[in-house]
Amino acid sequence: MKTALFPGSFDPYTKGHESVVRRALSLFDKVIVVVGLNPDKRTLFSAEERRRQIAACHAGDKRVEVCVWDGLTVDLAREKGAGFILRSVRSVADYEYERNMAQVNDVLSHHTVETVLLLAEPGQEALQSSVVRELLSHGQDVSAFVPQAVLPLLVKSDQSK
Amino acid sequence: MKTALFPGSFDPYTKGHESVVRRALSLFDKVIVVVGLNPDKRTLFSAEERRRQIAACHAGDKRVEVCVWDGLTVDLAREKGAGFILRSVRSVADYEYERNMAQVNDVLSHHTVETVLLLAEPGQEALQSSVVRELLSHGQDVSAFVPQAVLPLLVKSDQSK
Amino acid sequence: MKTALFPGSFDPYTKGHESVVRRALSLFDKVIVVVGLNPDKRTLFSAEERRRQIAACHAGDKRVEVCVWDGLTVDLAREKGAGFILRSVRSVADYEYERNMAQVNDVLSHHTVETVLLLAEPGQEALQSSVVRELLSHGQDVSAFVPQAVLPLLVKSDQSK
Amino acid sequence: MKTALFPGSFDPYTKGHESVVRRALSLFDKVIVVVGLNPDKRTLFSAEERRRQIAACHAGDKRVEVCVWDGLTVDLAREKGAGFILRSVRSVADYEYERNMAQVNDVLSHHTVETVLLLAEPGQEALQSSVVRELLSHGQDVSAFVPQAVLPLLVKSDQSK
Amino acid sequence: MKTALFPGSFDPYTKGHESVVRRALSLFDKVIVVVGLNPDKRTLFSAEERRRQIAACHAGDKRVEVCVWDGLTVDLAREKGAGFILRSVRSVADYEYERNMAQVNDVLSHHTVETVLLLAEPGQEALQSSVVRELLSHGQDVSAFVPQAVLPLLVKSDQSK
Amino acid sequence: MKTALFPGSFDPYTKGHESVVRRALSLFDKVIVVVGLNPDKRTLFSAEERRRQIAACHAGDKRVEVCVWDGLTVDLAREKGAGFILRSVRSVADYEYERNMAQVNDVLSHHTVETVLLLAEPGQEALQSSVVRELLSHGQDVSAFVPQAVLPLLVKSDQSK
Repeated sequence: MKTALFPGSFDPYTKGHESVVRRALSLFDKVIVVVGLNPDKRTLFSAEERRRQIAACHAGDKRVEVCVWDGLTVDLAREKGAGFILRSVRSVADYEYERNMAQVNDVLSHHTVETVLLLAEPGQEALQSSVVRELLSHGQDVSAFVPQAVLPLLVKSDQSK
Repeated sequence: MKTALFPGSFDPYTKGHESVVRRALSLFDKVIVVVGLNPDKRTLFSAEERRRQIAACHAGDKRVEVCVWDGLTVDLAREKGAGFILRSVRSVADYEYERNMAQVNDVLSHHTVETVLLLAEPGQEALQSSVVRELLSHGQDVSAFVPQAVLPLLVKSDQSK
Repeated sequence: MKTALFPGSFDPYTKGHESVVRRALSLFDKVIVVVGLNPDKRTLFSAEERRRQIAACHAGDKRVEVCVWDGLTVDLAREKGAGFILRSVRSVADYEYERNMAQVNDVLSHHTVETVLLLAEPGQEALQSSVVRELLSHGQDVSAFVPQAVLPLLVKSDQSK
Repeated sequence: MKTALFPGSFDPYTKGHESVVRRALSLFDKVIVVVGLNPDKRTLFSAEERRRQIAACHAGDKRVEVCVWDGLTVDLAREKGAGFILRSVRSVADYEYERNMAQVNDVLSHHTVETVLLLAEPGQEALQSSVVRELLSHGQDVSAFVPQAVLPLLVKSDQSK
Repeated sequence: MKTALFPGSFDPYTKGHESVVRRALSLFDKVIVVVGLNPDKRTLFSAEERRRQIAACHAGDKRVEVCVWDGLTVDLAREKGAGFILRSVRSVADYEYERNMAQVNDVLSHHTVETVLLLAEPGQEALQSSVVRELLSHGQDVSAFVPQAVLPLLVKSDQSK
Repeated sequence: MKTALFPGSFDPYTKGHESVVRRALSLFDKVIVVVGLNPDKRTLFSAEERRRQIAACHAGDKRVEVCVWDGLTVDLAREKGAGFILRSVRSVADYEYERNMAQVNDVLSHHTVETVLLLAEPGQEALQSSVVRELLSHGQDVSAFVPQAVLPLLVKSDQSK
């Protein structure tokens, strides 16, 4: 069984993320979306809220799993038996970041985890969580950027960042 | 069955190319290395010579197939039932080229072929066929850059470019 | 009438910014310099101080307007009847950022606002507000980087960041 | 009157080029599409064929002019009274090329010609003439990439490159 | 005597930094490693801890000096009689940053200080202090990334960031 | 004695090249400008013409040597006892090319030759030989781009490329 981890912040989960997972399912038997926990980085949505957004988006598809993780990605890969880290690239800056992370994960996993890159869909390069957060902070409609199933989960009782 | 095309010039086949195929075999059931025929581009080795280099390198591995093709990659994908195009990225320039080709192939295949990118191994970013050709033209040893099985096939009776 | 918004932080306003506005006035009938209000980002100068720097720099030129705005740029464009967003590019990183913002603003404005890019003048690529702030924090002379009219407005009674 | 030169190879003219001209017409009173003549570079279509493609595409719009030019762009700018050079950017590589050309043209024109950059439309970054030529050489349909009015002009009696 | 300043954060000092200093010693008579003091940036190790790491790594080599500095680099260059600023480049993003800093330092030093760039060693592009900090925060072994002499100095009584 | 090779095409030698050599002389005891001979690449000036341009520019400075070479740069380094290859960087594309060449030369020289990069002077990034050739082909004045001593050597009896 070919399993890939898809780690990220997903603050919130966007149509761009959904597209990556959907396309990756033609390649892997299981894709585990990994919500990163970074105590130094303030997020708009809590890890649990983000986990629920992703679960709602892929509800009913047994090949997609979601989990929250605050350790090294390669440690989770070992635990889950995942041989691949899946990442998406939208820009030159993304590419350089991914190259560095792939080199580090290659060393840390003793060459047992391979990084696989998919490209953002044409016209979706700008589809970033930071843009969605900016729009939400101005009370704007984000339905062009966020999967249908995630939209109701963006309403927060306390939306102050 | 998951089949990927790995198109390129392979003039000649390098350790970098071999590394991509080897790693891709953990992801795909079959990798078809596609030697491109470009009548406008002079090559050091003929298409048949390059085909033989690749075949020699992966001899005995039934999961690797080699072929020469002078049409569109997406047409070969349809013919071979391949859902993926495999490419390797070594640099920002590579990345931008691959992004463009992926967009074109996405349109031409009506979204039926997905481009999958692997990264060059750390320290192998400079491992290009053009470097090997340059070294060969100066009669230098290229065993650091070319797979063992390919080395005997680099000797040409007529090596004038 | 062709009106362009020129949004930015302008913390503080530099000769690079002034050059963009001056050159843009050959292209547009009016340029509105928009001081962005970002509650999450600490600035050295208050929005009002920055507004006054820009006004001082372009005093007497009716084609230049300054305003402070804390909403989406496309909303201000609609309000002001501006069909263009003007931005300057100094580097590859700038270019990728502008491409993303242009895509987002294109979607948000329903294709009614066009992003126009001017290049930094040769030799001025490094002329960034962050450099000026760094120099100010060390009590250095910044007259090589800041317009003459802005210099007196950089002296702060309380300059502690 | 604000006049911009839009120089390029246009071998052939694509929907991407048409989009740049159409959007530029909201900015300039006249756009002159300049077909470059480069004796060192083989083209698929002759300068006259390319001129006719562009003319066909913008037929009836008096604000668009087409001409063939084999001199320096800044010399044509002086002759035509054009204060702007219009260029489109699709990639980081494009951006660096444009930055260089803009610096050179700034020196050669004694700072009288300004370069204005528009971005490729989202999803059209890969829409290049070289792709269209490749498709034509394989006898493929290019109607997704070339303006309707240009299509009949792509059929050549002698299509050998 | 040719003296170079090598300014940085060094939080902590890595094998990549050590490699730059070692190679630079074939070029310069003295290399002064300058630990930057930035009151706005939280670091894992104090300036004094970082100074001690670097001193331990190059102990016994009189050509390497270490100091802590909170002013402009060009002011320290004047004070130390250093005509060069030494920097290392690992990526396109690094390169653009260095180009900007070099332009600024060229202006500030009235063209008396030259910036010299060395490249990261092949396979070490990802060897960044931020990666080491991340590994330390998860209690991981970092001996692959940090010089032998520095390892004992990474143990902190109070390691809470 | 610290000797650096400065290899390139120099077709023709520009103020940008001269600036690199002049600045490098503060770093090295000797700089050997190496005119590359590439039989596959047509040049405007012959190797001997280029050699004479460079010699004229640095006449009287014993620290600058010029030679023509058609072998590997690392072989010339060994022959000349040069421990350094000097290169200049003007752009991201240049940087990636230099990184690759440095990796290759590091392998080929068994780690005995170090690549040192200087940055193009601010405002001179566009100062390329190709621009000068283009201007010459249109009979334009190039005194802004070419050293005074080289100008008389650009006049050719037969200037057809």
